[in-house]
Amino acid sequence: MLSPAIIQEFEQLCGKENVQHSSATKLAYSYDATANFQALPDLVVSPRNTEEVSGIVKLCQKHEIPIVPRGSGTNLAAGTTPTKGGVVLLFRHMNHILELDEENLTVTVQPGVITDELHAFVEDKGLFYPPDPSSGKISTLGGNISENSGGLRGLKYGVTKDYVLALEVVLPNGEVIRTGGKLAKDVAGYDLTSLMVGSEGTLGIVTEATLKLVPKPNHNQTLLAVFDSLEKAAETVSAIIAAKIIPATLEFMDQGTIQVVEGYKQIGLPLDAEAILLIEQDGPEEIVASDMATVLTICEEYGAREISKAKNEQEAEDLRRARKDALSCLAQLTPTTMLEDATVPRSEIAPMVREIIRIAEKYDVRIHTFGHAGDGNLHPTAVTDARNEEEMKRVEDAFAEIFETAVNMGGTITGEHGVGEMKSSYLEWKVGPSGLAIMQSIKQAIDPNNMMNPGKMFAKSTRKRVVVHNG
Amino acid sequence: MLSPAIIQEFEQLCGKENVQHSSATKLAYSYDATANFQALPDLVVSPRNTEEVSGIVKLCQKHEIPIVPRGSGTNLAAGTTPTKGGVVLLFRHMNHILELDEENLTVTVQPGVITDELHAFVEDKGLFYPPDPSSGKISTLGGNISENSGGLRGLKYGVTKDYVLALEVVLPNGEVIRTGGKLAKDVAGYDLTSLMVGSEGTLGIVTEATLKLVPKPNHNQTLLAVFDSLEKAAETVSAIIAAKIIPATLEFMDQGTIQVVEGYKQIGLPLDAEAILLIEQDGPEEIVASDMATVLTICEEYGAREISKAKNEQEAEDLRRARKDALSCLAQLTPTTMLEDATVPRSEIAPMVREIIRIAEKYDVRIHTFGHAGDGNLHPTAVTDARNEEEMKRVEDAFAEIFETAVNMGGTITGEHGVGEMKSSYLEWKVGPSGLAIMQSIKQAIDPNNMMNPGKMFAKSTRKRVVVHNG
Repeated sequence: MLSPAIIQEFEQLCGKENVQHSSATKLAYSYDATANFQALPDLVVSPRNTEEVSGIVKLCQKHEIPIVPRGSGTNLAAGTTPTKGGVVLLFRHMNHILELDEENLTVTVQPGVITDELHAFVEDKGLFYPPDPSSGKISTLGGNISENSGGLRGLKYGVTKDYVLALEVVLPNGEVIRTGGKLAKDVAGYDLTSLMVGSEGTLGIVTEATLKLVPKPNHNQTLLAVFDSLEKAAETVSAIIAAKIIPATLEFMDQGTIQVVEGYKQIGLPLDAEAILLIEQDGPEEIVASDMATVLTICEEYGAREISKAKNEQEAEDLRRARKDALSCLAQLTPTTMLEDATVPRSEIAPMVREIIRIAEKYDVRIHTFGHAGDGNLHPTAVTDARNEEEMKRVEDAFAEIFETAVNMGGTITGEHGVGEMKSSYLEWKVGPSGLAIMQSIKQAIDPNNMMNPGKMFAKSTRKRVVVHNG
Repeated sequence: MLSPAIIQEFEQLCGKENVQHSSATKLAYSYDATANFQALPDLVVSPRNTEEVSGIVKLCQKHEIPIVPRGSGTNLAAGTTPTKGGVVLLFRHMNHILELDEENLTVTVQPGVITDELHAFVEDKGLFYPPDPSSGKISTLGGNISENSGGLRGLKYGVTKDYVLALEVVLPNGEVIRTGGKLAKDVAGYDLTSLMVGSEGTLGIVTEATLKLVPKPNHNQTLLAVFDSLEKAAETVSAIIAAKIIPATLEFMDQGTIQVVEGYKQIGLPLDAEAILLIEQDGPEEIVASDMATVLTICEEYGAREISKAKNEQEAEDLRRARKDALSCLAQLTPTTMLEDATVPRSEIAPMVREIIRIAEKYDVRIHTFGHAGDGNLHPTAVTDARNEEEMKRVEDAFAEIFETAVNMGGTITGEHGVGEMKSSYLEWKVGPSGLAIMQSIKQAIDPNNMMNPGKMFAKSTRKRVVVHNG
């Protein structure tokens, strides 16, 4: 509970209308898109500019109040829940596209800009901002940067960090720094830009970002291939890459996901198929045509029982939406969905999906898997009920074994969602005790009072491993 | 001077033949490719594996001996001179390509592998490792990673950091960590991989790296366009990008450089031209053909007085070598060449080159400029004589003003060479006092005893600015 005097200091800084502390507001910002994590904030503040953000940080330092920067809260790792209470920072006023620089192919934005709004804005000028998290309709660029968001185009185009050229950041001491520039090459000192990207609000607050753009690809083609066997689908993925084709999108859904999506969307997905692949290429017309002809041949060769090509952009968008809405469809099955992002090298997709199926059976929980096959970023999703504590325990144990299996295959506990509070006890499995110690020493150096999004990324204790492998 | 007892400890660890301390050896490793910086090491050690590297680091900690990791010493910022003495680490035994993973499109290497050897190795399999520093014939991948090397293909393909997926690093305390993985997506904790890339040996020693590969482009075309006016050449660069074409290479030489290169290579460059552009596109045949047809039209439109297309790979390689050998040609003019890498946004190339000419006149020094026009990475190169102290002072002052001008244009003091000892007193101009303080706090957190490449990146005092701009 903050005293009225302290609240008044925030009001004087940002205006009374931008400082909220009603019970309803606090409840609304007590959770994000992650199931089963909740904590009440003390205050919800909406600064209007960088100076106000800096002022808020200084006030928080003075009164020892935790700070939780929050975009649209679409992250799935409890990255924006106010675990230790404190001030939730909203960027609803700082949501402007500040500059499009067509000569240097950059766009400069405030953190509150919605991802898909930026897509539309730059595509209108014949330019392209590739990162496309599935939540792009509502996620913000500040959130994307803090989480280093991926998306469907990661394989060919990379992820958010590959497009962040420069940042304005308010540090935990309230100072404002600018990193990078409109520069393809800059090696002046440590790469603070990359350090801030994906730091989940634990090292500072991004108040402005300059993003790299590329020319918009002027053609694309989308196809859907249906497989009776999971292995054949995975082999198809490998064969496409072996043919030296890097598709813009190479997505995967397992049987459970297909059935649920078809149940809700009725777009004609075959309910008895073991896997489908959604494959898209973009670029110059002749390249798209020749790549997709090769892809089609490979799908046939590897026994796809059905291949449908989108005849126009509407059909392509329907196919994409079927994949992007997989989570929403699954969410209609049960009160609680827990979507994870265990990621493995591309070569390990088929064994990993098989392991997920085995683990779900072992713990008697329902898990469906879809995701980005091209980059090994899978989304095993538990459909469950958070009110059933005994079942939740089994779900948690199943995910622990899934994370461990991914790490043992050379993968990671999180490909694009971040560690947040949810996966903080697993981080050491991926980075090792020395890696974790280095990360904590960086956190300590930059945020010595642990004011920035406390309770995230670093857990007090690491979870015990489920299975100990020697590999 | 190290005692015989201490030297013996290193010999016991790595074998007598891998520990050198003759006067000749110490002299050989007292300098790198950077003019005018020299300091004698105490010992030159060539470990055979990661365990030995870790052992060396622990011995150095025990006896408080500085550690300077060194590839081929081709850096141009005094990044590998043993400024504070100590142990120079060589990777001549750790120079193996460990694994090519064609399914995941990765290659795993030891730090001592020569850059161009890796190029040849992967291209032979139809794959491609894009970063191509001009020193690639002798530079090592460990060096490229430590300096985050760029090269001629930076505009289209990015720089070294864009291709480093995973690292094995020996930390300053001797512990070994592994960062990243064969993963396109990995957001588990802070991005230690990016922090290590470009950290110039000040945070740890890279002992293994997994690099991302892409399919090898199967065609390329190269052309040379000659301009009477510098502005017209710069406008051509902008017009090519505005036409939504991103060439693989877009290089620039000014009149002084042209004259010197032609003097030595006699390939028919016109001595009275104010600028030439070397433009190359790679990719599928039809795209290369259509892009280069557009480029040709743009060059004509902007008044190129002569355009020559390479008729075959030999001619293309001759043109590329003319550009890559610019430094070697300039180096034959005078006893000392100082090649810098002030970098500006692409839009500022023409004003920046004009400023360099003005500054050279102001300080009465000879500076020729060439470089990577597409990414704004210029190489103003002073041809001078280090024995003339008075002239060297003027050269230094001229470069100070060049760096400041670049920063004031939104650029940086170093695009691809690193800060090293040479530019350490300028770093604050680019990153500001708060940015510098954050970098130093990271250094302090990871290397508290300042054992790793001391005297680099962070100078005791920042150089006074030459001109104070308000912009």
